[in-house]
Order: sequence, then structure tokens, then C-alpha cells
Amino acid sequence: MSEDVKVEVGLGERAYDILIGPGLIGRAGAEIGSRLAGIRAAIVTDENVAAQHLEALKAGLDAGRIASSTIVLPAGEKTKNFAALQEVVDAVLAARLERGDAVIAFGGGVIGDLSGFAAGIVRRGMNFVQMPTSLLAQVDSSVGGKTGINSTRGKNLIGVFHQPRLVLADTAVLDTLPLREFRAGYAEVAKYGLIDRPDFFAWLERNWQDVFAGGPARIEAIAQSCRAKADVVARDEFETGDRALLNLGHTFGHALEAAVGYDGARLVHGEGVAIGMALAHRFSARMNLASPDDAARVEAHLKAVGLPWRMADVPGGLPDAETLLSFIAQDKKVSRGALTFILTRGIGQSFIARDVPVSEVLAFLKENHTG
Amino acid sequence: MSEDVKVEVGLGERAYDILIGPGLIGRAGAEIGSRLAGIRAAIVTDENVAAQHLEALKAGLDAGRIASSTIVLPAGEKTKNFAALQEVVDAVLAARLERGDAVIAFGGGVIGDLSGFAAGIVRRGMNFVQMPTSLLAQVDSSVGGKTGINSTRGKNLIGVFHQPRLVLADTAVLDTLPLREFRAGYAEVAKYGLIDRPDFFAWLERNWQDVFAGGPARIEAIAQSCRAKADVVARDEFETGDRALLNLGHTFGHALEAAVGYDGARLVHGEGVAIGMALAHRFSARMNLASPDDAARVEAHLKAVGLPWRMADVPGGLPDAETLLSFIAQDKKVSRGALTFILTRGIGQSFIARDVPVSEVLAFLKENHTG
Repeated sequence: MSEDVKVEVGLGERAYDILIGPGLIGRAGAEIGSRLAGIRAAIVTDENVAAQHLEALKAGLDAGRIASSTIVLPAGEKTKNFAALQEVVDAVLAARLERGDAVIAFGGGVIGDLSGFAAGIVRRGMNFVQMPTSLLAQVDSSVGGKTGINSTRGKNLIGVFHQPRLVLADTAVLDTLPLREFRAGYAEVAKYGLIDRPDFFAWLERNWQDVFAGGPARIEAIAQSCRAKADVVARDEFETGDRALLNLGHTFGHALEAAVGYDGARLVHGEGVAIGMALAHRFSARMNLASPDDAARVEAHLKAVGLPWRMADVPGGLPDAETLLSFIAQDKKVSRGALTFILTRGIGQSFIARDVPVSEVLAFLKENHTG
Repeated sequence: MSEDVKVEVGLGERAYDILIGPGLIGRAGAEIGSRLAGIRAAIVTDENVAAQHLEALKAGLDAGRIASSTIVLPAGEKTKNFAALQEVVDAVLAARLERGDAVIAFGGGVIGDLSGFAAGIVRRGMNFVQMPTSLLAQVDSSVGGKTGINSTRGKNLIGVFHQPRLVLADTAVLDTLPLREFRAGYAEVAKYGLIDRPDFFAWLERNWQDVFAGGPARIEAIAQSCRAKADVVARDEFETGDRALLNLGHTFGHALEAAVGYDGARLVHGEGVAIGMALAHRFSARMNLASPDDAARVEAHLKAVGLPWRMADVPGGLPDAETLLSFIAQDKKVSRGALTFILTRGIGQSFIARDVPVSEVLAFLKENHTG
């Protein structure tokens, strides 16, 4: 008997389940086959995940009699580009998969975003299954149907909304993650508390060591995160409103990632989000929207878990404030020329702030630039 | 006062108008501006259309105070590829257009399919306006939201569903089309009669000269075609059922296009569809589904208007029947390994035939190969 936690994403005819628990890779064939009978699959993965877990997934699919081919890509954010997209698309077509067959994303956020995009455009949309192997992907990028690649002009500027038919989050896999990567994913867990679940944030402050250690607290944190994300996505699938709240920390964070040229050795996505969330709270305090005590509380928690929380924490230095501002302005959360940010009135009280004055942002970036 | 014919595409929150009439290019700014206030636009066009009509469109947009940039691509089917897609996407991002701004497709089916795909993936979906300048695009490809590019493995295998917000079909532009191109588009007009409107097909048999000459009969034929397509699209936006009827003639046609390497000097899309429709009727007669008289009637009409109607009409010859079959099998209308064709029980009585025996198709191709 499996004791997976199940979270449902309520999207009508596009509704799907997220299963969370240890050992799901071995049961992948059964879980996929019971929902998508008689399909074939193309597994998209990266070199690191393939080396550690591909054999187990192949065995799991075989056990459910799902024939599969595999596409292995280089690991890392730089793979989210047009050339890799074309490679995946071509491999899926070469395998003669049809609309009813499935692309399986087996990896972290990069693999999920890229292969979801490919699944969304081959034959104008194929079935898609997410099997996230990083904490970040399990709590964030695998849920909600956002897919895409990066442009030289900014992150995730090219993509489609394409919902998976199923998400299988094998929590046992997380034990093989490097600590730094687990920690980066944790930033997105904390995000859900900071958006609108103050009790969850307080729970994390008390229990984060258990979440890092594994076991029931980790599964609980992942399930809570998926529920939080599923709620927002069900309300606003195509990000015409509330869903933008999920971008808390992301506008600043994306600018920092762009500023280091998406060099994961210096800054990975979750770390950018961590600094971005701290900056969003600090900026909200500067705008007299929130108490400085709340900003300090966020900074203290990020610092406690070992995440970077200020611009000075980015190794190798950053370009000047004007350059950072230009990265923010190119970010996709720009709406009709005005800067849009997710700001906050306190822990768990985030809101969408439109028409944020560029001059205030620039002044803030200058003040905080050297940490 | 404009006397445009208006056809509404009933897709709920994605509903939009098709306006058909002479002079719409000059009124583009007013028509777009009244529906999408305050936007900027990127015009995507090809060298031929740009040379003849771009100034008029620029003036029309200026008159409605819509600022625009322009991307000019080489004309022809070979432009529907990944490199051109990337070029358009990058140009739209470079112009810093936002989700609420619009990509305007100003050209034939190639430009419409390519730029609609780009509009569908920049920032996960921008506003999109179709301004079709060929007959084929006005009656078919600009309506219904199918976008895409070709793969080396087949036509239109990569793309998204992305509905336009408005279609402006300026019928005066059609007077500048080469006769061959007009005729190719006419194949798609006749298609609507053959699918399920026998009275329309009979009307075309009597009035096709007037449609070619221009004036009210031409506008009527375009409007009837758009209504026919809009009805099907409203019933089945994502082609899970009925919409496949619009592929009448396309499975054979795509195979012929692939067989000549998408060389428009030898065969353009509408010509492939014309031959494909004649073959679909002849094959239906061979399968004892329809009367040979109906097949002969279709062939006679295509011949009368000057369209190719048999494989022998493809200049430069074709590969053998087995090779043609392999192109058919890679076509996207393959469903779970069985061949799916649109066949017919007579004029205006088309239907979706699944599980068509491969052996019958191969025998038919061999019989008809030398015409």
C-alpha cells in the first residue's frame, strides 16, 4: 500500500493529481498507466538525474508496460534555450509519438519548463507528466502549467501554459540532492507562507530543521506548498490576476539571475528568489507599507536556513543599480510601461502593487547595493 | 460608411470578429484600436506583401494612433521554420511589446501561422491580429487559431492553438494576387462545399467565374467560407472531434507537399489540397462509400477552374507509392497507429474515417500514381 499524499489541482477538464511520497519513481508505470492507458512516453531528463535515477524510472515504466525513449540534456539553466527546445521537439517527433502519448519531465525546474514547452507545441499539445526531482520543482515549477525557455532578454519570456496530466513527486529522491539545491528549493516553500499563509511561515520557523532532515515534516511542507499553489492556479490559471502573487521575490530575483548571466555557480533560481523576497519585504517597509520588524523576521529566517538574503550575498559582485533596474524593466511582470511588484503589508499579507515608482526602486537598489 | 461583412467566431471569452470587405487595410488602426485600446503593434510580413501593401498598412495604423514596428521575412513555405520563429520572437521582445500589445500577421498562410505561433509563445501569449492578404489565408488559415511551423518530419507538426482577437480580410488586396495563388486559395473555398454544404458547392460550380472576377460574388464566397469554418471551430476549438473535417484533402495534400520538399514552384498548399480532395473522393468511390460520379464531378470542377486534380499534375514527378505512404503516416492526423482520413459519402457528405487500412491506401496510391 502506498501512503502518498494526494493534492488535486481543480482546473475542470484540465484537472489533475499531484502525488507526493517516497518511491513514486518505481510506481510511475502504474500511476501513469491507470490515468493514460496504452500510451508510449518520451522521458526528458538531464545528465545528473539520468546518472542517478534513470534506470529506476525505466524499470518503473516497464512494470506498467509503458514503452519509452529517453532524451538526456546537459544539466543547468543554460539548457532552457531555443536549441534545446528544438532538440527535444525533434526527438519526440522522431520517436513518432502522437498527441495521446506523453512527454515525461524527469528532473528539476529546467527540465520541467523546457519539456513542458515541447509537449505543449508538438502536434499543438501532447500529454505531459511531471516527475520533479528537485525540491523547487516539487513545490513550485511542476505545478500549474507554466512552461518556457529563457531569452537573452530575460528569463521565461518564451513559453506556453500547458498543464500536466499528472505530477509524481518522489520525496525519496530529495535525499540525493546537494544541500545547496535543497536549500534553494526551500525558498519557494517559505514563499507560500509569506504570500498568504502566516501560520505556515510560523510553522516553518519552528520546524525547518525537520523539513531539511526528511520524514513527515518534509512531506507535510511539500504538500502544503502544492496545496497553496494549486489554490492560486485554480483561481487564475492564465495569470490575469491573483496568480501574480506567486511571483513574490521573483522580479528582484530574476534581475539578479540575469545580472550574473544565469551562472548557477554564483546564483541559482531559488537563491535569487530568497534575496528577492527579502528585498520585497525590505522595500515594502521602506514604502511604509509594512513594519521593518517583518522584513527583519524574513531576513532572519532565510539567514538561519543558510540562504542568501541580501545583494551582498551574491558572490562576484553585481552590476550597478541602473543596470539592475534595466533587467527588472525587461522582466515579464512589466505591465504597460509601469513597474509591477509583489509587495507586502506584513508576513502572509502580500499583494500586487502596480505603478510602483521607478525612482523609488532605483533609490532602494542604490541603498542596498553594497549590502 | 464601411459595408464590411462581419462573421463572428463564437468562442466565449475568446470570441472575435472577422471583417471582410475592400479597404480594410486603410481602416486597420480604427478597427484594431476600437477593440484593443492603447496598444502598440509588431507587424510581421513578407517581402512581397511589404513591397505592395506595407505603406498602406502603416498609414492605416497611424490613422488609429497605433505605433508599430515591422519584421519582414522571406516569402514562401520554407520560412515556416524554427529559425524564423526565433527571429520573430526576438524582434517582438526587442520592441519591448507586452502581453496586451499585438502581433499583426500581414500576409498569407505562412506569415499567419508563423507569427501566430510567435504571438502564442512570447510572454506565454500576446494579443494577435490576422490581416490575411491571400485568398487561402482569408478563407482558412487566418480563422480558428491554429498556428505553427513545419518540421523536417512533416508540415505543421509544431505549434499552438492561439486565437486572434480580430481578423481583417481586405478583399481589395486579392486583386494584386497572382492568378495561380488565387486559384490555390479557391481550393479551400470549394472544400467547405465538399465538407457539408452541397448547395454552396453547386453555387460555386455556377458562379466560380464571378468569384475569380471579384465583386460581390467573391465577398460572398469568402464570407460563406468563414462562416463554415467559424461554425466548425466553435464546435471543436482544439480538434478533438469534428474539426478534423477541415482536413478534407489535407492528408493526401500534405504528403504531396512533403514529397516535393515544400517547393512552391512545383506545388503550393492549396494545389496539394485540390489534388488531395479529388483523391479523397476517388478513394471513397474505390471503397464503395460514394458514387464515382461525385468523384468525377469534383475532378471536373477543379479542372474547370484550372487547379491540378491528380498526382500526374505535379510537375517534376513524385516518389513511389511507398514513399508517399510514409509521408502520410508521419502526418499529424495519425491517431494511435491507425490511419485516419476524411472520406465522403458524396458531395457535402464528408466524415472522419478511422482505421482506414494501410494496404488499401497503398494500392490506391499505386493505381493512381501515373495519373
